[in-house]
Amino acid sequence: MPEPTRPTSSTRRVPSGAATLRPAKTEAIRAAVLDELAEQGYGRLSMEAVAKRAGVGKSALYRRWPSKQQMVIDVASELSVAMVDLPDSGSLRGDVLAALRAVADWLTHPRFSRIIPDLIAEARRDEALAEALATGIGGPRRARAVALLDRAVARGELPPETDRELALDLLAAPVYWRIAVRGVPPEPGYLERAADLVVHALSFRPAGE
Amino acid sequence: MPEPTRPTSSTRRVPSGAATLRPAKTEAIRAAVLDELAEQGYGRLSMEAVAKRAGVGKSALYRRWPSKQQMVIDVASELSVAMVDLPDSGSLRGDVLAALRAVADWLTHPRFSRIIPDLIAEARRDEALAEALATGIGGPRRARAVALLDRAVARGELPPETDRELALDLLAAPVYWRIAVRGVPPEPGYLERAADLVVHALSFRPAGE
Repeated sequence: MPEPTRPTSSTRRVPSGAATLRPAKTEAIRAAVLDELAEQGYGRLSMEAVAKRAGVGKSALYRRWPSKQQMVIDVASELSVAMVDLPDSGSLRGDVLAALRAVADWLTHPRFSRIIPDLIAEARRDEALAEALATGIGGPRRARAVALLDRAVARGELPPETDRELALDLLAAPVYWRIAVRGVPPEPGYLERAADLVVHALSFRPAGE
Repeated sequence: MPEPTRPTSSTRRVPSGAATLRPAKTEAIRAAVLDELAEQGYGRLSMEAVAKRAGVGKSALYRRWPSKQQMVIDVASELSVAMVDLPDSGSLRGDVLAALRAVADWLTHPRFSRIIPDLIAEARRDEALAEALATGIGGPRRARAVALLDRAVARGELPPETDRELALDLLAAPVYWRIAVRGVPPEPGYLERAADLVVHALSFRPAGE
């Protein structure tokens, strides 16, 4: 995948001299990236095809992002991370259920249902993409989801020493497994029952403590 | 992907007149399928490349499997399903821990760590592959994992009305999420702590029951 080498700037999306980037054009490109990702997958996605679909020149892409990888991560991150911004529902059970619904919404989003498993599969073959995904999507999503656990600790629903790493793995995992791995949409009541089990799981205390 | 149309037989792997299939050749082909899947992914895997890597002609492949899809599912299934055959450890906690270890082994298998997420991503784009995966791998794995729940019910550790669907989603999911989605290997003690939480989750009883 030969691409022109460009000077990187300290900002993520706006290289120097980019004062004239038009938001409407950026939005058209973002939509084209999602469409191409959903249809072709990351491995087959080309800057040419994205530019053509968006009705712009390739230079319009490179004015915004220095590489295909950064373009994809930025576009996927914008949608993915916002979906974890969940308000305080007043209880751990309510917050967990909202989080499970957010994961389900994310994974059943018309384009993301294909995009997310594809990026994850590519990441197992591409170390740089794996790092970019963890930094651009996984990390920010987990950082926001930690707020849910911190609120439960503040309410006295969870002890301060709660294993946040394990709790976050448990939180997102069953819905991901069901929708993205098995390809089975949750039937009515599934997310509520899953929330009950996750909340109960988090109440586990090792013997003697 | 034009492929010759062949009469299907009622057996899965051995079309009619296949009495002369040589096991050593079959094993070489199976290894080549796994290598090609891990390196190229399902979408880019070709019968030509598998035949060349195995040192056989393409006809040797078609004598064994009528299509690329059936070849891949059969080869992946043989390894995947056997890994869920877990002996009775004597307790639900022991059985859950063994199952989590088996999922971790499956997903950190040198080639499967790439193959499984790739097949899952392709399945989101390919309905026939999704069905073949569910029938050839997901279903048999779940059927064997149900034995773990049935044993716990027989021991009195779980009530007979345990929601097996949800329990199985919860069982495999955190380890899959961590290893295959996040790309983070479980640190020492992680699987044991996850087993504690999963077992505790399964002890949840709705209020009033």
